[in-house]
Amino acid sequence: MIDNNIRDIVKTFKAYVPGKSKEEIARNYGINPNDIIKLGSNENPWGCSPKIKDEILKEIPKIHQYPEPINPTLMEELSKFTGAPMENIIVGGDGADEVIDATMRILIDKDDEVIIPIPTFTQYRISALIYGAKIKYAKFDKENDFKLDVDSVLNNITNKTKIIFLCSPNNPTGNIIDKKNIEKIINSTDALVVIDHAYIEYSKKEYDLTDWALKYDNVLVLRTFSKVFGLAGQRIGYGITNKKLVDYMMRVKPIFSLTRLSQICAITALRDKEFFNKSKNDGIRSREILYEGLKKFKELKVYPSEANYILVEVKNGMSSGEFCEELLKRGVIIRDCKSFEGLDGEYVRIAIGTFKEDRRFLEILKDIVE
Amino acid sequence: MIDNNIRDIVKTFKAYVPGKSKEEIARNYGINPNDIIKLGSNENPWGCSPKIKDEILKEIPKIHQYPEPINPTLMEELSKFTGAPMENIIVGGDGADEVIDATMRILIDKDDEVIIPIPTFTQYRISALIYGAKIKYAKFDKENDFKLDVDSVLNNITNKTKIIFLCSPNNPTGNIIDKKNIEKIINSTDALVVIDHAYIEYSKKEYDLTDWALKYDNVLVLRTFSKVFGLAGQRIGYGITNKKLVDYMMRVKPIFSLTRLSQICAITALRDKEFFNKSKNDGIRSREILYEGLKKFKELKVYPSEANYILVEVKNGMSSGEFCEELLKRGVIIRDCKSFEGLDGEYVRIAIGTFKEDRRFLEILKDIVE
Repeated sequence: MIDNNIRDIVKTFKAYVPGKSKEEIARNYGINPNDIIKLGSNENPWGCSPKIKDEILKEIPKIHQYPEPINPTLMEELSKFTGAPMENIIVGGDGADEVIDATMRILIDKDDEVIIPIPTFTQYRISALIYGAKIKYAKFDKENDFKLDVDSVLNNITNKTKIIFLCSPNNPTGNIIDKKNIEKIINSTDALVVIDHAYIEYSKKEYDLTDWALKYDNVLVLRTFSKVFGLAGQRIGYGITNKKLVDYMMRVKPIFSLTRLSQICAITALRDKEFFNKSKNDGIRSREILYEGLKKFKELKVYPSEANYILVEVKNGMSSGEFCEELLKRGVIIRDCKSFEGLDGEYVRIAIGTFKEDRRFLEILKDIVE
Repeated sequence: MIDNNIRDIVKTFKAYVPGKSKEEIARNYGINPNDIIKLGSNENPWGCSPKIKDEILKEIPKIHQYPEPINPTLMEELSKFTGAPMENIIVGGDGADEVIDATMRILIDKDDEVIIPIPTFTQYRISALIYGAKIKYAKFDKENDFKLDVDSVLNNITNKTKIIFLCSPNNPTGNIIDKKNIEKIINSTDALVVIDHAYIEYSKKEYDLTDWALKYDNVLVLRTFSKVFGLAGQRIGYGITNKKLVDYMMRVKPIFSLTRLSQICAITALRDKEFFNKSKNDGIRSREILYEGLKKFKELKVYPSEANYILVEVKNGMSSGEFCEELLKRGVIIRDCKSFEGLDGEYVRIAIGTFKEDRRFLEILKDIVE
């Protein structure tokens, strides 16, 4: 039987359970889909640039042709946007997840080690396990407002360490990692230090570490179009790192994975500065409204955030699952953090909505918690 | 230095050299891009269903939201189209390449073996090497019109064999593998037999082996939207196999990789039977026109094909590279088969064009070869 051939590691993975769609929730709870407030996936509630529609229309006559693996216009715009030369940029067609996967492909032989401070974005772990890596967990310290415990990273470095993931701002905790600590880690190892900047646009301008990808030999910075650009549905992410690593990753990454329509979306999004700036500023404002609003509930512990979501500890006696369920019944989707490795207790993650959605959500919350 | 950390296998891969775009060829050879005939990538020269445009427009307001990992409408339409239950189908967001990759993820531990008869689609080899597999080459026998040498497959089967790839119709040779030989292979092993049916729509109706995916425990059939559906730019492929394998692959495949707009393209394409049937019939007709036209050139050996391309051996003293270059100068892109492992000699692959493109191409060919 072929079942005997399945790798052991795959058998340890949980069976895939699809998340609930807006449509499904509407059906199950008898709610109009248009009344549902989705604060569960850290998306941009204002959508994407309005200029994208016309550009998509122009591209449709070409979608029977394979995509260009390296779209020169996209590379040029990305280079202008990031300040990095084109040859230092690699674009992923499954968002930044594809770039994470590419780092595994070039660096991980069986039993090599990957350091992941938790709680954090779950994809690092999944990707590492698929490629046969051993995971060494470090920690964002709960007792210290989820600040990175830098020693927990440094003490795990061995000569088998190949990649260290530093998500900053960190998902789901929302805080950033101190620059000095990141620098300390970079200087302590030959391993690749991946700084995941998916949410960097929502943090303080002076914190952006993108140029460290060029300053250091062993740094890769991840960025994405899924957040402030409002293109999560089109799966566009990118990495910035030294040319050699880009060259190696290009040899082994899926070569056509960025679709024609996604390429057009990305180019148009980069050119629409007005939409970008408004999304960013409104996103930060929305987070502030939510933060102030949430802080008024005595039974919630609210963590400060530099991203487009806020981590909240539920202390009203409900489990995080019950809390999410009560909100679902009222048409609000947030994220139960139970599935984040390293997060004991009752945590939920709440993403920014439009200003109107924020107000409605905070009203609805009064039904559930004081 | 981080360079020391790069896996040995990655260093054996060639550096990525991007293919030439229509735009680049137009510039280099001073040709109007609209006059270029692209017969290099086995695409559908008539594009995609005209109904796709309106459906894309309706989806654009949602592209800031992550895609549904399993789109129920798409699964339903695929089930109707293939006759397989939904739970036996897995969809890839980087075309069928992603399903190939998923087979590696669930089955390949380092030094497991994969059997690949060559010449064939190059992605099997690339994907297998990335996951640390050893490749055992079997052969499509040149001395026998590239018929599969079934013993070359059977003799390579060991207890380490995990996957056997059978591309039928085979790319780039265009011929199909005899059903009895495929059956013999399936019955000789516990390894997964992947029957790649990317081009099945262009072959004789009674040959379609899709239902073998349900009949046998160890068969996966690959299909794609990149060919007859005219959606190569949107990267949609799928596999049909037993439920258990689908379950395992879903645990480890990239979960959001099929973009929102690609999902809409696929659903609409499946519903437009008229476009599908016309594309298929016109595609077969175009291949016949090309075959008859090419056969008239004494210095070309033309192989019969059941796909949307034709393999040709160039015997006019030119190398395949020179032959392609002469066509490029005249605005025609075809595929030099030099890069196909196992193909000695001077081969090129010519895909179908529109009827008008076929005629022009055959005219242009007279300049180069008799």
